Order: sequence, then C-alpha cells, then structure tokens
Amino acid sequence: MAKASVNVAIVGATGAVGTEMLSVLAERGFPIGRILPLASKKSAGTTVEWLEKDLLVEELTHESFKDIDIALFSAGAKISAEFAGSAAKAGAVVIDNTSHFRMDPDVPLVVPEVNPEDIAQFTKKRIIANPNCSTIQVVVAVKPLLDIAGIERMVISTYQAVSGAGKEAMDELNAQVSALYNQREAPTEIFGKQIAFNVLPAIGTFNDDGDTDEELKMRNESRKMLHLPDLRVSCTCVRVPVYNGHSIAVNLQLRSALSAEKARAILRESPGILLVDDPALNMYPMPIDANGQDATLVGRIRRDTSVEHGLSLFCCADNLRKGAATNAVQIAEILLRDYL
Amino acid sequence: MAKASVNVAIVGATGAVGTEMLSVLAERGFPIGRILPLASKKSAGTTVEWLEKDLLVEELTHESFKDIDIALFSAGAKISAEFAGSAAKAGAVVIDNTSHFRMDPDVPLVVPEVNPEDIAQFTKKRIIANPNCSTIQVVVAVKPLLDIAGIERMVISTYQAVSGAGKEAMDELNAQVSALYNQREAPTEIFGKQIAFNVLPAIGTFNDDGDTDEELKMRNESRKMLHLPDLRVSCTCVRVPVYNGHSIAVNLQLRSALSAEKARAILRESPGILLVDDPALNMYPMPIDANGQDATLVGRIRRDTSVEHGLSLFCCADNLRKGAATNAVQIAEILLRDYL
Repeated sequence: MAKASVNVAIVGATGAVGTEMLSVLAERGFPIGRILPLASKKSAGTTVEWLEKDLLVEELTHESFKDIDIALFSAGAKISAEFAGSAAKAGAVVIDNTSHFRMDPDVPLVVPEVNPEDIAQFTKKRIIANPNCSTIQVVVAVKPLLDIAGIERMVISTYQAVSGAGKEAMDELNAQVSALYNQREAPTEIFGKQIAFNVLPAIGTFNDDGDTDEELKMRNESRKMLHLPDLRVSCTCVRVPVYNGHSIAVNLQLRSALSAEKARAILRESPGILLVDDPALNMYPMPIDANGQDATLVGRIRRDTSVEHGLSLFCCADNLRKGAATNAVQIAEILLRDYL
Repeated sequence: MAKASVNVAIVGATGAVGTEMLSVLAERGFPIGRILPLASKKSAGTTVEWLEKDLLVEELTHESFKDIDIALFSAGAKISAEFAGSAAKAGAVVIDNTSHFRMDPDVPLVVPEVNPEDIAQFTKKRIIANPNCSTIQVVVAVKPLLDIAGIERMVISTYQAVSGAGKEAMDELNAQVSALYNQREAPTEIFGKQIAFNVLPAIGTFNDDGDTDEELKMRNESRKMLHLPDLRVSCTCVRVPVYNGHSIAVNLQLRSALSAEKARAILRESPGILLVDDPALNMYPMPIDANGQDATLVGRIRRDTSVEHGLSLFCCADNLRKGAATNAVQIAEILLRDYL
C-alpha cells in the first residue's frame, strides 16, 4: 500500500533543474511530508520558494538523508557519485538526474511513457537514473512508432537550448545579447564562445572518434531504454540561442511500412505527446511553445522516400521539465504508487 | 578572347543579396565597364554605394538591358520570370539567384567548385541559375567526397539564418529582441511567428506530402548539380535566430569506405573549403565565423558507425555571399574568362 506522504530531498535545489523540481512537485500535488532542499556549502543558508513559502537551503552532507524517502539529485555527476550511495544507505530511493549512473546495468534508466516496468529494478542499488534531456523527448516520440513498425536506424540533429547548461548559461546568453546591443564585449565564461545569434555544433566533451558525450548519450541511453542494444543511432548535438526548450529533427528508418497519416494517428493517442502538425495552418512544434509544459510536441511528420520505410519528424520539449524535473517526478509518482 | 570589361546590371540592387553582389564585385576586382543598379519603382531614385560613390538606382523595365553583358537577378522569382527573358533578348547573360529557372533543363545550375563545366550550356537560353543558399554549401562540402567514395544517401538538417529571408527579416529579428527586452509585443510580419530565442522548423511553403519547398530544393538542386538524378536526399530545414550564416548537419552514407582522417585530408585541399575541425582545441564551424567570408567552413567530420560507410560533418557558410552573391560573381568570372 502506498504511503500517504513521503519525505523528499532535493539535491541541487538552487539550480535550474532543482528549482523546476520544486515547482513540478507542487504543481502535480505530490504528497510531500517533509521537503528538504540541499545544496553546496556556498548556497546553504539561502532560501528557495515552495508553495509560496521560503524554505531554508541546507548544506548537503552524507548525513542529510535521515528519514528521507526519495532523494532527487540534480547537482552534477560528481555530487551524485559522492552522495547517492549515502542517500540509498540511509533508506532513500535516489532518482538521479545526472549522467553518473545512467549506463550502470544495476540502475534502471526510465522514461515513464517508455519503460516504466524498468523501475522495478531500483531495488538493486536503490537508485533510478533520469535520462539525458534530449534523449527523453526522442524516446517519448519514437516508442509508439517502434511498437508498431520497428526501428532500424535513427539519424538525429538537435537544436538545444542554453538552459540545458544551467542557470548561468541562460544568464550568459542574456548578458551576451545585452553586450552585443551595447557594443560591449560579450562574456563567454560558460560556453567559451558567443552563443547569442550563433550556433555551437558541440555539446560536452569530445571522444577520440570526434563524437561528443552528448551525442553518445543519445545513442546509448536510447538503446538501454528501448531495450534495443544494437539500435543504430547517429546524432549531431548543436546548441542554439534559445533560452529553454530543446528541439530535435529525427529521421527514422523503420522496419516496416508506416504512412505519415498512420504515424500521426498513433502519436496523437500516445502518452506524453502533443501532436502539433498542421502544415496548412503553419502549425509545427516550436521550443517557445514547449517551454513551461510537460508534453513533448511532435510534428513535421512525413514520409522520407530516400530510404525504405523512412519517416521524418520534429519534436520539442521543455528540457528542464520533461527533460529533467517532470520526468523525475513522474518516476517518483510510480515509485510511490507501486513500490513504497 | 575575354572582354576587357563588361557592363553589369544588378536587378534587386537594394536588397540583402543585391547589396552583397555590389560588395563582392568590388572586392574581387571584377572588370566592370558600367554598373547599373535596378530595382522596383518603389526603390528607384534611391542610391546604393559602389566603390565609395553613390549610384542612382533605376527602375527595372523591359528596356533596362541595352548594352548590358551580364545581368545579376536577385529580386524574387516573379521578377525573374517576367524580366530575365528581356535581358537575354537584349544580349545579356542572366545569372539568376531566384528559384525560377533552377530546375529548367535548358538552364545550367552551377556552383563553380562543383560543376563549372555546366556553364557552357548557358547558350540555350542565355540564363544561368544560381542555386539555393543552403544547397550551395552542401554540394561544395560533399563533392570532393563524392568524387572519391560515391554517395548513396544524405540526411540533412539545416540551421538557417534570418538573412536568408531578406533584409526585413534581419530587421524583424532585431525588433523582436528589442521588444522582448522591453516587454513590448514583438512584430511577426515576416515570419508570422517569434524567431528571437526560438527555432522555426519550416522554411517556405508546404507541399501535399508535408515537405517544404526549401527541403525539396536541397534534394532536387543537389541531384542536378552533382549529376546524380537518383541521389537519395532527406532534408529538414529549420530557421534559427542567427542574423547571417547558414549551418548544416550532413549525414552521409558513402558507397565505399572513407575514414574521417582521409575525408579531412581531402577537404583540406578542396576548393572553396576552409577546414575547421580540431576537437582538442574546440574548433568547429560556426555561423558567426562564416559571416563575411566566401569559404564554406567544414568540421565535425567523423565516422558514423550506424550505417555502412557512414560519415557525418557540419558546415557553415555566409548565405548572402557564397550562398548567393559570391557564387553568382564566380559564375560571372568564368563566363567572362571562357565565353564572353
């Protein structure tokens, strides 16, 4: 039987995703007993807003997790590596938004619309990983098509918002635009380059083959969540000067024939998807429309005649919400309903 | 023997591309006898700058082309449809930057680095078509790879600057940014949507299959210029909030094996290409670097293991220069050298 209420810790409560987690928990009426905002020593003592009250942020330590049922981590991979074990040992279930545990075979990697059944494996380490922001919306959009037609290969190009690099990155875009409009030199501390009125075809660090870790996340995390260890995925990740909301062009080579019309009908009925696809009315997904909502917007669905069973689509989602906070809270909801 | 100098008319001289054509002709020391800026009645009587002098813009009429050797058209497809014939009949060779004649089998469609030999066919109608801005940089980047390894299929996603929609579009992005920063309503006359801090996954008009005409240009014009009528091309065209400089993610399925290293070596030596590809130094093509130059920047070259003989790359070019004005002037240079 589900607990009536649970105690929830937010690790990284002052960050872009942590702030969003607090909002999403409140909006969705998650049954909170106690809420505990945690952050680094630097941010401890500040406050965050929760249901119109100010909550004091406490310093994250290994002893922070007493009586905590669920710990939502979003303070970087290093913090998760160091503190997730302590939270689990104290009895909490960790839902980790960083990349640290995602490919650990003993840690389920979950998008509730895609592979909710994998949550059951949380018992191995008491850790559940929340996937990469771009990958989440792609698997939400393609899973219903995979179920009906199979997928041979995906070629993906992303248009990723600066919020994916945190609050400071949003501030930097803002500062760069101001600087350019006032003919001052633009700050480039976060991106190392000008992102305002520019695009940066590189997110994260490069491996020896010339792929970025962001591009490999798309491949590896999709494979894990879709239970297709050999799925063929090619990805190019690009940062664009959008504040919030990632957009993704997805080209699919399906295993069997599927018309654009049928794909549209399937996706219209699929969980977590808002179909925005009416060329006659110039309706298609845009990141400013995805911003602030939980659905993955899908549109530009069309046959690709350049390959057998080809299908193209374009999707957008709020990377701080469905790409991070909302997905984590949805996992927490299933945990609470079925396992706690 | 080449003429010592030629008389050149610029149709659409006050537009974004027309202005750039004047600059490029001057920069490259094109041997001009007389230069004649032409525009609509509305713009006639204004002036454009040419070699630090002000030139009076004349109204375009069917009688404008007497003694003109080369007429560079860039005033929209309708104007080309109406006036290119008059220019040709008056004895000029038309180099047309609009889409109107591009797929006409009696009109060569030329990128000098790719298919200069096709210029010879100008004699059929005395018209040469300048390709679509995005397509130009793609064929510049892939032709050297096609020559060595063949191409089975290209999957392309674009990141196109607002200047591709003209001067007014650049003004609108600027006005939208100002409006958003001052909490006023943003004007959306050109794009019909907010482009500032947003992306628009639709350029041009839709056909019944859900493709845009911009996407079909990429397929059809590539096929014509590369002399591969059955080349398999899939394309998604997206507008991004960049003032000038188109960027393109290109995923290639080659016919035979080609390592990223070999591809890099080939492209480094290829005409019109500046290789910008050093992950260790975070060097990759960016539109702000392409802006103002004539080369197509190519980088992010890497094997794509998701398909046999897969190769990915990212390129950027100044869509007003190599994507329009420079390419047209390069065609004029070959015309002058070999045919006039």
